[in-house]
Amino acid sequence: MHYAARMKLVKPSAIRELLKLGEDPSIISFGGGYPDPSLFPTDGLAESYRSTITEHGRTALQYSASSGLRRLREQVAARVANDGTACDPDQVLILQGAQQGLDLVGKMLIDSGDTVLTENPTFLGALVAFNPYQPRYHAIAMDGDGIDTDAVDAFFRGGGRAKFLYTVPDFQNPTGVTMSLARRQRLVELARTHDFIILEDSPYRDVRFQGPAIPTLLSLDTDGRVIHLGSFSKILAPGLRLGWAVAPQPVIDKLTLLKLAADTQCSTLNMLATSRFLDAHDIEAQIARIRDIYRGKRDLMLAMLRAHFPQSVEFTEPNGGLFTWLTFPAGFDTAQFMAEQAVPLAKVAYVPGATFFPTDGPCNHARFSFSTQSDEAIEAGVARLGALLRKTL
Amino acid sequence: MHYAARMKLVKPSAIRELLKLGEDPSIISFGGGYPDPSLFPTDGLAESYRSTITEHGRTALQYSASSGLRRLREQVAARVANDGTACDPDQVLILQGAQQGLDLVGKMLIDSGDTVLTENPTFLGALVAFNPYQPRYHAIAMDGDGIDTDAVDAFFRGGGRAKFLYTVPDFQNPTGVTMSLARRQRLVELARTHDFIILEDSPYRDVRFQGPAIPTLLSLDTDGRVIHLGSFSKILAPGLRLGWAVAPQPVIDKLTLLKLAADTQCSTLNMLATSRFLDAHDIEAQIARIRDIYRGKRDLMLAMLRAHFPQSVEFTEPNGGLFTWLTFPAGFDTAQFMAEQAVPLAKVAYVPGATFFPTDGPCNHARFSFSTQSDEAIEAGVARLGALLRKTL
Repeated sequence: MHYAARMKLVKPSAIRELLKLGEDPSIISFGGGYPDPSLFPTDGLAESYRSTITEHGRTALQYSASSGLRRLREQVAARVANDGTACDPDQVLILQGAQQGLDLVGKMLIDSGDTVLTENPTFLGALVAFNPYQPRYHAIAMDGDGIDTDAVDAFFRGGGRAKFLYTVPDFQNPTGVTMSLARRQRLVELARTHDFIILEDSPYRDVRFQGPAIPTLLSLDTDGRVIHLGSFSKILAPGLRLGWAVAPQPVIDKLTLLKLAADTQCSTLNMLATSRFLDAHDIEAQIARIRDIYRGKRDLMLAMLRAHFPQSVEFTEPNGGLFTWLTFPAGFDTAQFMAEQAVPLAKVAYVPGATFFPTDGPCNHARFSFSTQSDEAIEAGVARLGALLRKTL
Repeated sequence: MHYAARMKLVKPSAIRELLKLGEDPSIISFGGGYPDPSLFPTDGLAESYRSTITEHGRTALQYSASSGLRRLREQVAARVANDGTACDPDQVLILQGAQQGLDLVGKMLIDSGDTVLTENPTFLGALVAFNPYQPRYHAIAMDGDGIDTDAVDAFFRGGGRAKFLYTVPDFQNPTGVTMSLARRQRLVELARTHDFIILEDSPYRDVRFQGPAIPTLLSLDTDGRVIHLGSFSKILAPGLRLGWAVAPQPVIDKLTLLKLAADTQCSTLNMLATSRFLDAHDIEAQIARIRDIYRGKRDLMLAMLRAHFPQSVEFTEPNGGLFTWLTFPAGFDTAQFMAEQAVPLAKVAYVPGATFFPTDGPCNHARFSFSTQSDEAIEAGVARLGALLRKTL
């Protein structure tokens, strides 16, 4: 088999191997960023699928438009409008999860050798999606307010060129950090000054535990420079594989052509049943329930980390989302510790941080997810790991 | 927006615009290759979705493996084994329809400028999927026995190079032609001699009206050179968006990494409900029903073409699938005729043939689908078009 050159960049990812570790029922895994399945609205969805197939089977099981079901695009557009951006349904493309948006935007924009700007660290799935298009990465430092916009400016002023900047501004994966309003305003301004596109990936946006929502980059942009990705995975269920892109219509038209080429369309049935669920149920109540549960899990995990981990281990205190980001003392290797001690001795898994750095990164970080495990498992897992760490550090 | 160079090859396709024409309810469209929706097993699927969500909601709505649900891969492997090829479930990747296989195989194999061999004409969706990877096409002539294997041999003996050959051997889209056994054997032999891969796309394979099935290229290959694509779209329902690839495991592993990058996975719910449907129902009986109905529609369309079209218009007599391919007198422009006469005067649409030729092709062909329209519409549409043609030709 003579593979294309791009396949050199397509390799199994550490996180995927780790999810396999987590499948061992004796291991408590804080690795996967899975939603808590007890929060899935199973009764409502069961009824929605039943009635969709029974009443509209011939439509629901047939081919439909590549751009996605019109009613569902209207519902997404209404949510986007409610979140601060006037949005026509023709500016919405329904995707096979937001992940597909990463693939299609990469395909649309990246020529081999182009530089993509990312946060440092950044979402691994974005790197996995972009890699086949053979970009180079320039990773920009973050702090508690998100990406360092001065560093973005300096990159361009120093002669750097990049087609787009990829960011997860709300409760970032993996750090849990949220970009401040001032940084967002500055970033949108910089995009205009230096002529680049912002790819705003915000699957966790509705999973906010406290404080008011900060305007999306999409809503701050007046220049058509933001492509925004959202998802039903965290507020409804990931098994439906439904997300969306919002962008100026000419961009959506291009992405729709790529969607058609890639997989024709999303499942008509999933789109129709989801649309029906949204019409028949109060999704805001569902989101409020998710927020309450995850807020409680975050509080529990942070309390347990404070109580059981050595003080030399720092961690972020996210205002939403699924993750906290741990920083161990310099030189501590979280991957080695996990393989040699955490998994065999404490029966606990997480994601070592090095995997989230687009280029070489430090080995002393880890991503802990608090969304999937039960309260009991969070307590037991953090306590066991803390006891082990106190012996080691 | 500074698009990647590959976007020059990403354009709206004629067939997509035509499907829009067909949406006008006053037009009888033989354009779209849609299954007859009255054949969808709606009751069985409604029950399958209801029980899947009710009994296994937490699993069905959650993330699952990128390679696809294990049980569904077993079921596909069993069908492939039944069709002449020993197949392990690890040699199966579940796809978002066979279309996704075209995208992922293109991504895996095509470097910019590589030559892809195709039949002439060929499936438009394959060209649409391959185009973003910037191949060149070398299209090989066909006759009633399928692709001209001597011409394939001559291409390579003349110094041509190509990584893979794309074929739809069973009831080809658009021509309805089936590749003979002798040609299949020769093609597999040539693949070994000249070191190329065969991409066998066979979504219509089970929709055979008469005669025994001819062995798949996959089953004839002993050298790991065939990637086979199949689909539930024609035997169950396209709205589920489920298809599969079968290939040697190292190739499936690469495709699985690309699937993960492209959209994480297929809908867990759709995979689980489809698997359950296959366990609970007799899919062979469903396929027999589809064959009977489409055979009747083929017979009707061919009889109507014989009765109403001028003798100067020739057409194929497919042994299966959804399509017949019409050849009008040399110089007759089927696209112009459709726009200026067939649609406005006869209220009938089809797909002009030029769109199916990878490089320049003649304008005197058309693809007629007999699968979607009712018997009454087939009768009325062909009669109206025939009357118009008799005035013109």
